[in-house]
Amino acid sequence: MAETKEQSILKNSKQKPQQKKYVKKTNEKRQKTGTKTNGGNTKRPINKTRSKKSTTSKKPIKIIPLGGLGEIGKNITLYEYDGDMFLVDCGMAFPDEDMPGIDIVIPDFTYVLENRDKIKGLVVTHGHEDHIGAIPYLLRNFNLPIYATKLTIGLIEGKLKEHRLLGNAKLNVVKAGDTVNLGKFSVEFIHVNHSIPDAVGFAIKCAGGTIVHTGDFKIDTTPIDDRVIDIGRFAELGKEGVLALLADSTNAERPGYTASEKLVGESLSNLFQKAGDNRIIVATFSSNIHRIQQIIDEANRCNRKVAVSGRSMLNVVSVASELGYLNVPDNVLIEIDALKNYTPAQTVIITTGSQGEPLSALHRMAFSDHRQVEIVPGDMIIISATPIPGNEKLVTKVVNELMKHGANVVYERMYDVHVSGHACREELKLIMSIVKPKYFIPLHGEQKHLMKHTDLAKLVGIPPKNTLVATNGSVISVSEKEIKCTETVTAGRVFVDGLGVGDVGSIVLRDRKLLSDDGIIVVAVSIDSVTREVVAGPDIVSRGFVYVKESEDLMNEINELVCDILERCYINRIKDWSTIKTKIKDGVSKFLFTRTKRSPMVLPLIMEV
Amino acid sequence: MAETKEQSILKNSKQKPQQKKYVKKTNEKRQKTGTKTNGGNTKRPINKTRSKKSTTSKKPIKIIPLGGLGEIGKNITLYEYDGDMFLVDCGMAFPDEDMPGIDIVIPDFTYVLENRDKIKGLVVTHGHEDHIGAIPYLLRNFNLPIYATKLTIGLIEGKLKEHRLLGNAKLNVVKAGDTVNLGKFSVEFIHVNHSIPDAVGFAIKCAGGTIVHTGDFKIDTTPIDDRVIDIGRFAELGKEGVLALLADSTNAERPGYTASEKLVGESLSNLFQKAGDNRIIVATFSSNIHRIQQIIDEANRCNRKVAVSGRSMLNVVSVASELGYLNVPDNVLIEIDALKNYTPAQTVIITTGSQGEPLSALHRMAFSDHRQVEIVPGDMIIISATPIPGNEKLVTKVVNELMKHGANVVYERMYDVHVSGHACREELKLIMSIVKPKYFIPLHGEQKHLMKHTDLAKLVGIPPKNTLVATNGSVISVSEKEIKCTETVTAGRVFVDGLGVGDVGSIVLRDRKLLSDDGIIVVAVSIDSVTREVVAGPDIVSRGFVYVKESEDLMNEINELVCDILERCYINRIKDWSTIKTKIKDGVSKFLFTRTKRSPMVLPLIMEV
Repeated sequence: MAETKEQSILKNSKQKPQQKKYVKKTNEKRQKTGTKTNGGNTKRPINKTRSKKSTTSKKPIKIIPLGGLGEIGKNITLYEYDGDMFLVDCGMAFPDEDMPGIDIVIPDFTYVLENRDKIKGLVVTHGHEDHIGAIPYLLRNFNLPIYATKLTIGLIEGKLKEHRLLGNAKLNVVKAGDTVNLGKFSVEFIHVNHSIPDAVGFAIKCAGGTIVHTGDFKIDTTPIDDRVIDIGRFAELGKEGVLALLADSTNAERPGYTASEKLVGESLSNLFQKAGDNRIIVATFSSNIHRIQQIIDEANRCNRKVAVSGRSMLNVVSVASELGYLNVPDNVLIEIDALKNYTPAQTVIITTGSQGEPLSALHRMAFSDHRQVEIVPGDMIIISATPIPGNEKLVTKVVNELMKHGANVVYERMYDVHVSGHACREELKLIMSIVKPKYFIPLHGEQKHLMKHTDLAKLVGIPPKNTLVATNGSVISVSEKEIKCTETVTAGRVFVDGLGVGDVGSIVLRDRKLLSDDGIIVVAVSIDSVTREVVAGPDIVSRGFVYVKESEDLMNEINELVCDILERCYINRIKDWSTIKTKIKDGVSKFLFTRTKRSPMVLPLIMEV
Repeated sequence: MAETKEQSILKNSKQKPQQKKYVKKTNEKRQKTGTKTNGGNTKRPINKTRSKKSTTSKKPIKIIPLGGLGEIGKNITLYEYDGDMFLVDCGMAFPDEDMPGIDIVIPDFTYVLENRDKIKGLVVTHGHEDHIGAIPYLLRNFNLPIYATKLTIGLIEGKLKEHRLLGNAKLNVVKAGDTVNLGKFSVEFIHVNHSIPDAVGFAIKCAGGTIVHTGDFKIDTTPIDDRVIDIGRFAELGKEGVLALLADSTNAERPGYTASEKLVGESLSNLFQKAGDNRIIVATFSSNIHRIQQIIDEANRCNRKVAVSGRSMLNVVSVASELGYLNVPDNVLIEIDALKNYTPAQTVIITTGSQGEPLSALHRMAFSDHRQVEIVPGDMIIISATPIPGNEKLVTKVVNELMKHGANVVYERMYDVHVSGHACREELKLIMSIVKPKYFIPLHGEQKHLMKHTDLAKLVGIPPKNTLVATNGSVISVSEKEIKCTETVTAGRVFVDGLGVGDVGSIVLRDRKLLSDDGIIVVAVSIDSVTREVVAGPDIVSRGFVYVKESEDLMNEINELVCDILERCYINRIKDWSTIKTKIKDGVSKFLFTRTKRSPMVLPLIMEV
């Protein structure tokens, strides 16, 4: 079932016969259901209705979050009913500061691979890295069919191409409103708002009941593409009866409602006016296509040309334009090299680097390391983003540096140059109150977010015993009767470092941490294998410890100490290399801690000649 | 002039003869001045008045910030007039994430030490680490007299004791309102509000004019000790005529006014009620003595005993109680070991760790590593602090972990459990508008803070040409005629790592960064010095690179590669060790990057046998 890009997306119409196998149009059905249940606010006791229908043959549905709980990122959830399984999302996470050298973190796929025969496919909510970033690493081992909306598939294709996995991938474009059948499950795609277009949540149905899985979402009543979240469908499902709701907890700490993306457009408009005759540079997330659309529109209104800088920004602008998610008027986009042909008043640059990433275009501009763009006094630089926790200092560094060049930098929240893509507390309550689930399971978030989200469930009347804060690997069993964790399966994190996947573990990370704190001292010595006499060395070499040229005395003292230790070993006829190594390591470590209060790693090397 | 703690503080009265030498009571003088100039709002053109007084003999005053500009921390400023100098503050900074293993950062004292004969003393604004933390490192080389208020001196003494420098230190207690004469300067201490008691700003006078140096400050109209910032004195100085104002820029981005410390007391009171029969744990900055006072008062009102956890908290509570800054009712404080004798409803624990510091008491509680305190469900834990930029993730980690134990954790801003110690934009404008300086120089802050502060100066009518954003090492020359940077002197940062001061520089840090990213590969080989044949090895040892047991093939390949390189060197009669080393290093690095896309440090060691 290999598909090329053309087959799967651009010539989508041709695919219909193939899609029919999986994708069922449910609009008609929905209409009927809608008519039936849409007749007003008559309060029906949902659970009662449901229990009437239920038969003794109903089995519990199993929900197994394999990532995304107790953390931000690497979202992946496995659903199981009566021997059939499917996955929702397959994301990556960014490394913490205690994972030096790690590029990305992906979920542990052990349990997925153990059950590959049962798993019918992967449905994806939207195209952000924390929901699609680990797909190539899964597909290497298990080429399961993938179902997602057009833009999401487009972004997944880009990833798979990089990993040379596109050729065999089974990609299926699904529209919001459609339903995919996956074994004993049917999965209906429901449109939601988010900081990337074409995001969906799911209504997951099986004989065991209906589960609503929101994915990342917000409620935007004035979205840029005029496609408001399908609140009506969520409400219908609520009226039909929902067994469990799994919802996005990212903003469960934030009161009120998340502002509309339109608000950013208004702020940008004001700032573009304020810029006068100066150049404008806007940094934002490359995936925020509606933001980019607003920047382009505003630039066009002000008769400014737009240049794009940064690899991911160029890539997304290209994919989104091609697929029709970005509407670029003719003659607005220019190559970045063409900037020199225009006055500052005629240009806008859209760039990556809103998180202060050291290799990003904005960072390079700030530190005068960008080939085409040099920051000059008066430049109006708008950072249209909020720092992700952990990136605050990186962003500040870039802001300070830009200001040193005399640029006018807009970065504060007060200017409304950014809005979140996630629902705040009132929105979360709204969704709960219309979906009316019997059980509630918070998804996507650290412990604090999950707990705060559960507090909200109590506020809208879901009894505490019907809510469950799980951890990655929890097997949650849900039935009309009860919700409970029945067991725990393998789940965790796997580190990707360069080409290596999983070859860096806790011991290697611990060593990296030790090395970065105080460096390393290598003590090398050659010993005659017969006479046991020292024939060369000891040589003392350090890295990351002290500036050696200024610490010769200390190095000489270490040398003397090692000579003493070796002599004592010789006299005491200690011939076991590992004992001698331990004595060198302990002796040097102790000496250095006393003298310097530092603990470099000490690595003794004995060469037998 | 050695002084013990008792002499300098507790038996302060005995010191008066000695103090007279330096400290002059100016209260009387102030009263008179006050009467003379306090007569209403008659707008006098200050500059005109001043220029009438000025004579041609007036020289420019030199202001040399040696730390605290373009950064948060290590505040230190040198003033010079007609060959006489003195220092204001001598603080440390915390290391950034790009300074692994570094304990603290202190100013480069080169210029101070070059001018030791001119420097008459050090005046200190308050007892926070970023204003006093580097004093021991300066005193080691230059034992200059120090002038500060009672609490500040108490905290400096603690530091000097640790560094065994207290014996010879020349410490002088000065009260707000008093003036210290330092060569051709007089320095008047003016009471300000801040997040530590006994903070002051300075009115610095010399024949060249008057300079106001605020230090860290806020305007608290309802402070816990009822001592409101001496706004009156600042206004008087403004009327007398101020040449330049140097002010705290920390909160120059924040609109409005900083809330009063009293607000936190109200929030704590509500939360203590909400805690019911559960234990209460409050984490805050140990130096925030007024915060600690409020916690103790509230505990006492609720008939709860207070235990203190964390070394710095115990230390500050002891010093502050001894000096009379903390008023602890009888029988309220208990030893932490005595907690077991009380019910949860009867206890409050005050602890360090509000920044999530890994070795702090709260962190140890969260990770079940605290000897006396085990977190139990229901515990009410209040984090009475805001994360300092860069610490967000550390704090979040602790919050998540505490919640996993079932604790009720209060950490959001919405509960008003913390207020800043720094003036916000409206307060900054207020100070400027009453001090009415001719020139304005923003202090304490990163570039963005300094720029925002300068924007405020423009708002209150100080012409842009009369404001100056300097950098560390700028020599600012101020006279009636003009303000300008005349030159730059040595200023920078010195790293303290264990006992080492300045022995870790950029090369060592670069190596630590490299080591932490991908680890190290040591390639050791013994070569016969005569025949040039390999007599032992090559041995390949790695640390922080891969988990070796699972990468034996890779290690073997490296081994073969090195053998090849050595053989080629032998055949080609390359005998220069450093050339051979370079060939090994380059060969192994290239091989590893191709195979793994990683760049571990490669360290070749050749032993000549």
